[in-house]
Amino acid sequence: MEQFDRRRDNLLAVAARVFAARGYDRTTMRDLSRASQMSLAGMYYYVRGKEDLLFEIQRGCFERVHQGAAQAVAGVSGPEDCLQAFIRHHVRFFASHMDEMKVLSHEAESLTGAKLEEVRRLKRGYVDLCLELLARLDGPNGGDRVNRHVAAYALFGMMNWIYTWYDPAGSVGVEELAESICRLFLNGYAAEVQVR
Amino acid sequence: MEQFDRRRDNLLAVAARVFAARGYDRTTMRDLSRASQMSLAGMYYYVRGKEDLLFEIQRGCFERVHQGAAQAVAGVSGPEDCLQAFIRHHVRFFASHMDEMKVLSHEAESLTGAKLEEVRRLKRGYVDLCLELLARLDGPNGGDRVNRHVAAYALFGMMNWIYTWYDPAGSVGVEELAESICRLFLNGYAAEVQVR
Repeated sequence: MEQFDRRRDNLLAVAARVFAARGYDRTTMRDLSRASQMSLAGMYYYVRGKEDLLFEIQRGCFERVHQGAAQAVAGVSGPEDCLQAFIRHHVRFFASHMDEMKVLSHEAESLTGAKLEEVRRLKRGYVDLCLELLARLDGPNGGDRVNRHVAAYALFGMMNWIYTWYDPAGSVGVEELAESICRLFLNGYAAEVQVR
Repeated sequence: MEQFDRRRDNLLAVAARVFAARGYDRTTMRDLSRASQMSLAGMYYYVRGKEDLLFEIQRGCFERVHQGAAQAVAGVSGPEDCLQAFIRHHVRFFASHMDEMKVLSHEAESLTGAKLEEVRRLKRGYVDLCLELLARLDGPNGGDRVNRHVAAYALFGMMNWIYTWYDPAGSVGVEELAESICRLFLNGYAAEVQVR
């Protein structure tokens, strides 16, 4: 099974790259066959078709980023350190999965039916983790001057927008990027908590 | 000429709505004819074709948001108030142009050649205005702990991501949204400036 998983993961990574570059609609299974150097028949051994590929990319991303984040915050005490761990993990994960990030963002509505529902469920679970960490930072007497949902999506915006401008090989390293986003957001949000 | 402009603006707004919903690739001039209730021949009186429509949507947005922002900051003294005026204007503008925002983000690379270059030039000009406002906030002795480009794109991320989650008719009003983003970003960035 190990080789099956490895080849399937490789196919998913290639598909994410092609979907990100050409768009999901414009991409054919033939394009993916060429890019992955697998035969059409070979690809159908791993996935049921193009929509299945898109689904597996989206499901895999949300599952892995959620699982990784849960691990990253598990050993951390203190609500501020927890949120920092969450931010660092998210930025690191997507800085090395920028194609997937673009696909998650641009093709969020390309799935239909049960597949769409399942991805939405996973996404909600991950957003809920972030909301929970913000709530811990607020503390039991935390007010709600900046609506917590607005704060969470502002944070996801700061982190996710990197796929439009960030070059991991450029002058700003991933750790510096993660650190900057941590500081900008935490200082901004902490200022809210203090005035409450 | 007034009627020409009005009907052309209306066509651009309809096209933005359809591009946002179906994607640029999947949309045909026939779809746009149906959605705008204009004949195909009628549409070609206003634009040269689908790519021209996409170009005019993108150019129009960047020109108007830049012009509006320049006016919004013109009468304001004090670097913090200037940046607040810039943020408020951007959030208000795109909260009422969410389709255009999605098209700017998803179809940034759908143009080619001179049209692509022109839109990139306009976008750079607008980003430069934001960088200039951040530089004023830093002051002459401003260090560079959080790279100014990172801060600018973090801010654009917070503001632009709204097209993925924000509902202008929902419980958070546009002014509250703008205010929240102002506070989150300015407190975060100000904390950076103070420690320098």
